[in-house]
Amino acid sequence: MLSQKQKQQLIAIVGKENVDDSKAGRLAYSYDATPLYQSLPDAVVSPRSTNNVAEIVKFCNVHRIPIVPRGSGTNLCAGTCPTEGGIVLLFKNMNKIIEIDEENLTVTVQPGIITLDLINAVEEKGLFYPPDPSSMKISTIGGNISENSGGLRGLKYGVTHDYVIGLEIVLPNGETIRTGGKLAKDVAGYNFTSLFVGSEGTLGIITEATLKLIPMPETKKTMLALYQDIEAAANSVSKIIANKIIPATLEFLDKPTIEAVEAYAQIGLPTNVEAILIIEQDGPHEIVEHDMEKIKTICQAEKSVSVQVAKSQEEAEALTTARRTALSALARLKPTTILEDATVPRSEIANMVRAINEIAAKYNITICTFGHAGDGNLHPTCPTDVRNHDEIERVEKAFAEIFAKAIELGGTITGEHGVGEMKAPYLELKLGKEGILAMKAVKSALDPNNIMNPGKIFAKANRKRVVIKT
Amino acid sequence: MLSQKQKQQLIAIVGKENVDDSKAGRLAYSYDATPLYQSLPDAVVSPRSTNNVAEIVKFCNVHRIPIVPRGSGTNLCAGTCPTEGGIVLLFKNMNKIIEIDEENLTVTVQPGIITLDLINAVEEKGLFYPPDPSSMKISTIGGNISENSGGLRGLKYGVTHDYVIGLEIVLPNGETIRTGGKLAKDVAGYNFTSLFVGSEGTLGIITEATLKLIPMPETKKTMLALYQDIEAAANSVSKIIANKIIPATLEFLDKPTIEAVEAYAQIGLPTNVEAILIIEQDGPHEIVEHDMEKIKTICQAEKSVSVQVAKSQEEAEALTTARRTALSALARLKPTTILEDATVPRSEIANMVRAINEIAAKYNITICTFGHAGDGNLHPTCPTDVRNHDEIERVEKAFAEIFAKAIELGGTITGEHGVGEMKAPYLELKLGKEGILAMKAVKSALDPNNIMNPGKIFAKANRKRVVIKT
Repeated sequence: MLSQKQKQQLIAIVGKENVDDSKAGRLAYSYDATPLYQSLPDAVVSPRSTNNVAEIVKFCNVHRIPIVPRGSGTNLCAGTCPTEGGIVLLFKNMNKIIEIDEENLTVTVQPGIITLDLINAVEEKGLFYPPDPSSMKISTIGGNISENSGGLRGLKYGVTHDYVIGLEIVLPNGETIRTGGKLAKDVAGYNFTSLFVGSEGTLGIITEATLKLIPMPETKKTMLALYQDIEAAANSVSKIIANKIIPATLEFLDKPTIEAVEAYAQIGLPTNVEAILIIEQDGPHEIVEHDMEKIKTICQAEKSVSVQVAKSQEEAEALTTARRTALSALARLKPTTILEDATVPRSEIANMVRAINEIAAKYNITICTFGHAGDGNLHPTCPTDVRNHDEIERVEKAFAEIFAKAIELGGTITGEHGVGEMKAPYLELKLGKEGILAMKAVKSALDPNNIMNPGKIFAKANRKRVVIKT
Repeated sequence: MLSQKQKQQLIAIVGKENVDDSKAGRLAYSYDATPLYQSLPDAVVSPRSTNNVAEIVKFCNVHRIPIVPRGSGTNLCAGTCPTEGGIVLLFKNMNKIIEIDEENLTVTVQPGIITLDLINAVEEKGLFYPPDPSSMKISTIGGNISENSGGLRGLKYGVTHDYVIGLEIVLPNGETIRTGGKLAKDVAGYNFTSLFVGSEGTLGIITEATLKLIPMPETKKTMLALYQDIEAAANSVSKIIANKIIPATLEFLDKPTIEAVEAYAQIGLPTNVEAILIIEQDGPHEIVEHDMEKIKTICQAEKSVSVQVAKSQEEAEALTTARRTALSALARLKPTTILEDATVPRSEIANMVRAINEIAAKYNITICTFGHAGDGNLHPTCPTDVRNHDEIERVEKAFAEIFAKAIELGGTITGEHGVGEMKAPYLELKLGKEGILAMKAVKSALDPNNIMNPGKIFAKANRKRVVIKT
């Protein structure tokens, strides 16, 4: 808990209306979108400016108070759970678009802006910001940067990291630095822009970002390919790319996911098939037509039972929107939904899907799998119930095995969700002891007092997932 | 100097034929492509494997011997000058392509492979590795990664950083770690892949790299636009991109550069104009045609006096090859050639070119300017003579002013050449004191004994460029 004096000091920085240490306020920010994790912060503070942030950080550094920067809390790795208490930093007062620069194709924003608001604003100018996490209607750019969010368009366009070209950062010592700029190229010193993207709020606080934009693609088309055989769908993914076509979107949904999504979105998805691929290509009209024809031929050769191009933009949008609802749809099945994002080289998608299903059977749990197949980024998702301790234990064991399998196939424990508190116990699988030590050295160098989002990325010894007491 | 015992220990690791401490051998590696910098190493050592590298690093860490990893020494920032002596590490025995993976569109290589050899090998499979530094005929991928090299195709395709997706690194403590992989996405921990790209050999030694490839563009076309007005050429660059066309290449050469290049390459470049743009677009046939038409219209509207599309592939290649020879061509004019790479937002290209010319006039020196205009990345180049101390002093002052101007325009002191020893004194202009302190903290955390390429990136107090005694 903060002392009265500490609370007054925070109020002196941001104003009374921007400090909340009420029980209700603290409870509201004691968890994020990740199930099974909860921890009360001492207060919720909403700075109005970079200077405010710098003053708060200096204050916290002196008093050794943890700071948990938080966008909308849509992350799925317990990245914004206030694991060790302290202050949750909200960016509701720092949510402006500072500038859209049409000559340099950049947009400069404050961290609190909602991703979709940014996307809509730049699209009005004929510009395109590709990263589109499924949570984009509520997620913030600051959160996207902290977690290096992906999305449905990652295959062709890359992820958040590929669009961040400049940052303003308040370091754990309270000093403000700037990295990069409106620059296509910059090699002045270490690439701190990239180091901070995806650092999950553990190295400093992002207070402004300059993002690269690209011209809006001329047109796009969306295709739905149906399969009675999961591996045929996975093989289609590999074959499309091996044929040197890079679609904008290449999404996979298995039968249980299709059923859940159709029950939720009711757009007429076929529920009598084993898997579907949603494939989107964008670009100049002729190229889209040409690529879609080639993709259709490949899918058919790989035993797709039906390949249909969406007839209208509405139908196309219904498909991608339905895909974006997958988590919400699956969340309706059971009280608790555990969603993961093991990622493999895309050539291993078929092997990974097979392994997931074998592991689910072994532990007698249900796993629905969907995800960004073109990126090798799957979301095996388990509808379960936190009150069923026996099942939760089997779920934990199954996911540990899924992570190990992903690593065995040359993959990683997380493709786009981040490590946070949740996957910290598994990080060594990917990085090895020495890799973790090197990263810890960087963390300690920049944040010697460990005030920045402590308890994330680096696991406490021997700790696996923590299930909260119910 | 190494002791006899130390020399024998190195020989025990890599074999007699891979340790050279002869006067001639040391002299040959006492400098790189950067004028005015020279310093003798104690020995030149050529490891044959990652294990060799790890053993060498452990040995050097114990004995506090500096290690300078070096590709072909084509860098232009004195990045591989053995500033504090020690061992120059050559990768001539580690120059293999380990694998081209056509399903995942990746290539895995050892650091010593020549860039062009890699490019040719993947192009044989219909795949494309875009980064093409002008030195690509002799530069190595290891060097490209260490300096985050750019090239002529950076505008559309990005730089080396955008293609490195996995690294094997020997850390300064001699431990070997792996980052990333054949993965479209990976957020397991800090982005060490990006941190090490462009770290100029100061954080560890890259012993293997996995690079992303993309499908080879279907076709390309090259255009030459002539101008009697430098600003009209610069304005054309801004207008093309503001019109949402991203050419593959958008290069600028001013009159003195054109004259030097034509005298050297003799391909019929017009020497009676003030500036030229070399513009290349690649992609599907229809798109290339369409874009080239639009670009032509824009250049004409911006007062280009002639716009010609190359009639054959040979003519096109002659143009880009001529551009790549610019440094060699300018180097023939005077005994010493100082080439810089101040970079600005591309909207500021016209202002930057004007400032460079004003600064050259002020200091009564010749500056020829060419570069990647589309990236805002100019190479103001001064043909001079190191023996003319008075002129060299004016050259130094002029470049200091050019860097300051670039920063004033929202730019950076180096777009693609790196900081090395040469630009270390100017780094604070871009990063500020606090930015440098943060980067130094990371350096010290990973390399507490400062054995990895010491004397680079971080300047000694108050030191500006060092001119060697002649």
